[in-house]
Amino acid sequence: MIFDKIFEYAREADTVLIYNAGEQNRDPTFTYITQTTKGIFEGSALIVKKDKATIVTSQLEEEAARSTGMDVYIFKNGTEFQNILRDLLKDVNTVGLNYNSLSLSSYKMFLRIIPDKEFLDVSASILEARKVKNEEELKKLKEAAKIGSEILPDVLNDLKEGVTEYEVASKIVYYMMRNGASGPSFDTIVAFGQNASMPHYSPGKAKLKKGDFVLMDYGAKYEGYCSDITRTVVFGKASEEQKEMYYTVKKAQEAGMNAIRSGANGKDVDAAARNVIDSTKYKGRFIHSLGHGVGLEVHDHPALSPSLDLPLKESMVVTVEPGVYVPGVGGVRIEDDVVVKKDGFEKITSAPTYELIEVS
Amino acid sequence: MIFDKIFEYAREADTVLIYNAGEQNRDPTFTYITQTTKGIFEGSALIVKKDKATIVTSQLEEEAARSTGMDVYIFKNGTEFQNILRDLLKDVNTVGLNYNSLSLSSYKMFLRIIPDKEFLDVSASILEARKVKNEEELKKLKEAAKIGSEILPDVLNDLKEGVTEYEVASKIVYYMMRNGASGPSFDTIVAFGQNASMPHYSPGKAKLKKGDFVLMDYGAKYEGYCSDITRTVVFGKASEEQKEMYYTVKKAQEAGMNAIRSGANGKDVDAAARNVIDSTKYKGRFIHSLGHGVGLEVHDHPALSPSLDLPLKESMVVTVEPGVYVPGVGGVRIEDDVVVKKDGFEKITSAPTYELIEVS
Repeated sequence: MIFDKIFEYAREADTVLIYNAGEQNRDPTFTYITQTTKGIFEGSALIVKKDKATIVTSQLEEEAARSTGMDVYIFKNGTEFQNILRDLLKDVNTVGLNYNSLSLSSYKMFLRIIPDKEFLDVSASILEARKVKNEEELKKLKEAAKIGSEILPDVLNDLKEGVTEYEVASKIVYYMMRNGASGPSFDTIVAFGQNASMPHYSPGKAKLKKGDFVLMDYGAKYEGYCSDITRTVVFGKASEEQKEMYYTVKKAQEAGMNAIRSGANGKDVDAAARNVIDSTKYKGRFIHSLGHGVGLEVHDHPALSPSLDLPLKESMVVTVEPGVYVPGVGGVRIEDDVVVKKDGFEKITSAPTYELIEVS
Repeated sequence: MIFDKIFEYAREADTVLIYNAGEQNRDPTFTYITQTTKGIFEGSALIVKKDKATIVTSQLEEEAARSTGMDVYIFKNGTEFQNILRDLLKDVNTVGLNYNSLSLSSYKMFLRIIPDKEFLDVSASILEARKVKNEEELKKLKEAAKIGSEILPDVLNDLKEGVTEYEVASKIVYYMMRNGASGPSFDTIVAFGQNASMPHYSPGKAKLKKGDFVLMDYGAKYEGYCSDITRTVVFGKASEEQKEMYYTVKKAQEAGMNAIRSGANGKDVDAAARNVIDSTKYKGRFIHSLGHGVGLEVHDHPALSPSLDLPLKESMVVTVEPGVYVPGVGGVRIEDDVVVKKDGFEKITSAPTYELIEVS
């Protein structure tokens, strides 16, 4: 049972209630526990015990729910939902809730439906359990990384003078889905030229011209699990400045990766990469954290950051993504996903990075 | 100012605090107020007053934030974030929060940072304000609907024996993004044959064969706004059963649409469509609500549902999507997006629906 890990941390609660409010208000822990990506499970609940999870959902999701092999209760309306919940929890005093995901409105609803329970914040326990991936999860994460990596040659092949950022973004998503992704793991970033100086840029109608940086930050979702990859290339011949930016970031990424191992602290890994950049003329131009956890969410948990005291554990999966951003000039970011190992790391994204690619 | 509408309802608070926790924990109200889709604004806040909104964000989002023309405060770390927030709210006693979106963890953080404030649930006011779209929003929603509609001929053209569900899904997303969508508005559903009997099916490796239903439920995101379209066609010659299912749903959709006008009640619109299906042998086979609001979220707000007492207002945008699902046989759903008008409705999705399409 993947989810018994939750109770290694949340020892105060023997029952956890996970709730999906709506399409945009889903708790990825629902997918973590059911390990199914069938169905949406809006307005659905999971009653989780150490050895058993029970799904409470609507008719709409009945086939998806039954396919998990878990116990399933089907409601036709809000009153039935409330009655089922009350009944399933009638012998329980303390109910653990995921405060990181549960909205105040949903909390108010539970206070009304089951007012006799004591509620306990088990978000830290859930986060802790989800940080370390099991074999099944690693397989899915590696497939998501593989899908994202293998499309790169096709994408580079499509780069032509005059093509727009959003045309390139559409191709990236198309190739990933054609290769088995259920969708992009986040809105694809494609930034040409100076636009690459904004780390969270959204692709627009800018047209590709010779000498432009092409920064592509994208990822695949596969069976609920995400990948997150950034590659920066130059369309045409790279200038000295572009080469300097690229190789500074590349060196920083290598330094960061080489600091990764079970027991290393996330902030020291960040520092290893940041020091490389800060020892060059790009000091201060690396304006975000080095990396984050990847899992059922593309930003699964904070991981490699100057202000975060996080000892890495084996089988965590994190991004390593240093960048240099110079407004008016452009930006370079290189991002790979790695599994933390006992004595190092395993890079699961394989798209080429080592030398600056000049697309002709 | 689009957001002054919030205060028409939330009269008790003159200051509203909107917070985006993470990539997957964003409040779409943030986009509603800034009307920008640049940036991600993780860990960022908006201080909203009737005539002014102020963005509190990290360096990462500085360019995106400044492009809105709003007041911008940049923080470098958590302590700076807290100090800026305290300072901006120093003369405020009551702070409105969006309980529908704010997690309990974020709430606990605000209780710690600004313990001297009174917090007020303004989620109902925000929902009410966001339900009725203004001209600018309608333009974006119409463009999202147009992008989703215009790709259908290309998608049908690609249907061939042996093609898989996820290949069709990948083409749908590709064509939408090529035509200007920033991405799909939700995970695309493509269901062949019997799989169409699951309303929330996820596409898999099923191969298309003659006589299959092809149910496609998809949507485009354009400048943050969503469309949501379902079309069901038959690959090859339709059987009598398939035709009967299709034309039952089509009649139900027409009946539902014709009941829409400003002042009509959502549950009566649902009943108008449901009665058509329940008067046939498919009685009870329409197992979900007739429609929902569409906006910055694909499920923006509940709208047309048997259990919901909601008087429609002019310029709401809702889906009309009856369906019939027969396990072991398949399913038909037809879904369009309409704007509620004073005396009727305006259909903004234009993909062909009226006769059952048999793709040869």
